[in-house]
Amino acid sequence: MSMKQVRVGIVGFGTVGRATADIIAKHGDLIAQRSGVRLLVTSVCRRSGVSAADTPAGARATSDWRQLVREADVDVVVETMGGTGESLQLLRAALEQGKPVVTANKNLLAEHGDELFALAAARGLPIGFEASVAGGIPILRVIHESTAGDRLRSVHGILNGTANYILTQMENRGIEFAEALSEAQKAGFAEADPSFDIDGQDARDKLCILARMAFEGRLDVAKIPTYGIRHVRAIDIHSANRLESTIRLVGSAEHTDHGLEVSVRPWLVSRRSMLAKVEGVNNAVFLVGDKIGTQMFYGRGAGGDATGAAVVSDLIEISRDFAAGQMSAKNISGFLNSRELVLCDHPRPASWYLRLTVQDQRGIVARVAEVIAHEAINIDSLEQEPHLPKDRVSFVITVEPVSEPVIRRAVEAINQFDFMVEPVLLLRIEP
Amino acid sequence: MSMKQVRVGIVGFGTVGRATADIIAKHGDLIAQRSGVRLLVTSVCRRSGVSAADTPAGARATSDWRQLVREADVDVVVETMGGTGESLQLLRAALEQGKPVVTANKNLLAEHGDELFALAAARGLPIGFEASVAGGIPILRVIHESTAGDRLRSVHGILNGTANYILTQMENRGIEFAEALSEAQKAGFAEADPSFDIDGQDARDKLCILARMAFEGRLDVAKIPTYGIRHVRAIDIHSANRLESTIRLVGSAEHTDHGLEVSVRPWLVSRRSMLAKVEGVNNAVFLVGDKIGTQMFYGRGAGGDATGAAVVSDLIEISRDFAAGQMSAKNISGFLNSRELVLCDHPRPASWYLRLTVQDQRGIVARVAEVIAHEAINIDSLEQEPHLPKDRVSFVITVEPVSEPVIRRAVEAINQFDFMVEPVLLLRIEP
Repeated sequence: MSMKQVRVGIVGFGTVGRATADIIAKHGDLIAQRSGVRLLVTSVCRRSGVSAADTPAGARATSDWRQLVREADVDVVVETMGGTGESLQLLRAALEQGKPVVTANKNLLAEHGDELFALAAARGLPIGFEASVAGGIPILRVIHESTAGDRLRSVHGILNGTANYILTQMENRGIEFAEALSEAQKAGFAEADPSFDIDGQDARDKLCILARMAFEGRLDVAKIPTYGIRHVRAIDIHSANRLESTIRLVGSAEHTDHGLEVSVRPWLVSRRSMLAKVEGVNNAVFLVGDKIGTQMFYGRGAGGDATGAAVVSDLIEISRDFAAGQMSAKNISGFLNSRELVLCDHPRPASWYLRLTVQDQRGIVARVAEVIAHEAINIDSLEQEPHLPKDRVSFVITVEPVSEPVIRRAVEAINQFDFMVEPVLLLRIEP
Repeated sequence: MSMKQVRVGIVGFGTVGRATADIIAKHGDLIAQRSGVRLLVTSVCRRSGVSAADTPAGARATSDWRQLVREADVDVVVETMGGTGESLQLLRAALEQGKPVVTANKNLLAEHGDELFALAAARGLPIGFEASVAGGIPILRVIHESTAGDRLRSVHGILNGTANYILTQMENRGIEFAEALSEAQKAGFAEADPSFDIDGQDARDKLCILARMAFEGRLDVAKIPTYGIRHVRAIDIHSANRLESTIRLVGSAEHTDHGLEVSVRPWLVSRRSMLAKVEGVNNAVFLVGDKIGTQMFYGRGAGGDATGAAVVSDLIEISRDFAAGQMSAKNISGFLNSRELVLCDHPRPASWYLRLTVQDQRGIVARVAEVIAHEAINIDSLEQEPHLPKDRVSFVITVEPVSEPVIRRAVEAINQFDFMVEPVLLLRIEP
């Protein structure tokens, strides 16, 4: 039989874009043999241009994505440019031209998913977006296909490799946040402006996509309570260690009788927990379903190769249907539900970790304990870290389960005390 | 639009069969809404008969699977009867009638996969077999779809929940193998005749299917070296603990320059390892690929609900294609490769754990050490467990990396000594 060819244009020819082209070049025969489709990269685009050396054999290079999208020999468009400006225009243009797209852009889909998926559905086109969440871990495909007969109760996990790298470096080497961040930047695991990773927005965007897939409804990404790890200190890792625990940045969406409980925040997790075993730039996603029980999917969360492999898996799926003349928007059905996911306004009680940094003076413990008692919160443990300068003393308090509004009221009251050097660090303790 | 109906017959109406029917009954609307297909159980079959109370609403019950397969209102046949006798006849009959099948039967596929997949391919029919490996974990779909653009290097993991339950009970409670097995039997996690689970054949069958999917070739299941956990004692768990390790039964298939290294055997795994975190009846499968790096998939390995959910996920996929008139054997392409997977005859060096049980007498250590030195093996550690009766003393020896034939020669020589009470227990140490 004659092998069907599917011609690919790649826009945003950086790490992921190049890895995608490399995989297609290196494993093209394998892909053809397995899928019956021959992928060809015919055009690549980067705003700053692509050198002749970087241009894949047989492909053209351009700096104008508008031109690439229009080219007759581009059947499928891969978007790896990032951001939500030009990438949005690119996806619109490609879909309007009747071309399916594959994207690794969680930020774009979290913010403009409704528009893009509606446009794709109207044109009967698929959008491949496996690479947008958890790099090479095929979590979206698992949710879409493998849990189709089950009702999911929860999806949560470690969704940002940069934050996890920083936390595990702090844990393994006892260093401060700033030093771990600086090393992550030198190692290429963190951007010059790291706020997207360390303040939780990247994890939030991924969680938004996961929650929409798992619970099939609309979810305004801006409504997801999001806290990062910028204020985690070496002393917190030390205290966590004393509690036989460590700290992980966790995105969590859980179905409850009062709606969806959703947040991105640092958790104190037991050292015995699977979450604690996820180290470095790895990601892990947990699914809990009525029938499947708890499943966990673990792997590289970022990096050109893993993300490129996810892009290629989408390309293969879409290209198979393209070659057979059977393209459809079926893979995005979870996004086309017009129902709004109701966010929970009665969050369930959780245990909490509070770290206070104070200028030492008499009566601090009594005053803090009074505030906590006033909210009817029970203290589970309290420890003052020894050997600290008097002008910067740390207390760590863990409390028995109370709901988040209650603990936040206590934290706000504590933050008002004049002996507080900086705001309380609040961590949720893993249930 | 009118909803397409797909009518399901279930043969072997035990735990998994009933769970499958329950999921279809309970989540039928959800499935219809997600997939556009309404699943209906029209017929169930069990050799010993199905009571009226157990028969799903709207379904007939029979004790004759030959009748069920022929019924005009059965579009898809689910096989959950187990074994390799009648189940083989059932799959042949269903495929010959042009009916796709879904099976949870690893034993059948490991032994008769070649015939069944060839028959399915000749008829252009799919066989759903996600439930045959690792219960609810969608590992076969992941290998087939998500790694289609990558070259896998290794697949390994904990594939038998019963053996893992026994090992973790021994570990957590310091009990002997026989007691842990007896408890597993009482808890319903082990059969009255447990040999299939504890001697490794169940894991071997699953590994055979995984390896064929991952490496795309034929593999004679009888050629997989298989060792079970029957001879692991409390003292081994104790010694493992001293080495900051524990014991897991691992099935492993690894691509090397000299062919496929494949085995099922107990491993000594570091307590820091992800393998060690897999407890109770859970399973975990690791994939290592050129591009994806290391991925791990974890969840319930058995049980009606998890396995039933996997059966239903296959039913949904097949039914969607059935309703659209697009059935094909595409999902079994990994099995249709006529290439034989070459087994490695130069296994790479590994570290090993040896436990000797001896009648104490002078000079034992010297004689054992001499045998080991004779094979040019370096001892890494040697410890005699204290406080044991003189007629049953245990030594634990760990050795530096040597290939398996070398360590087995040493073990055979040691087993000849008249002071040996029982054969050496040999564990591979996790690389």
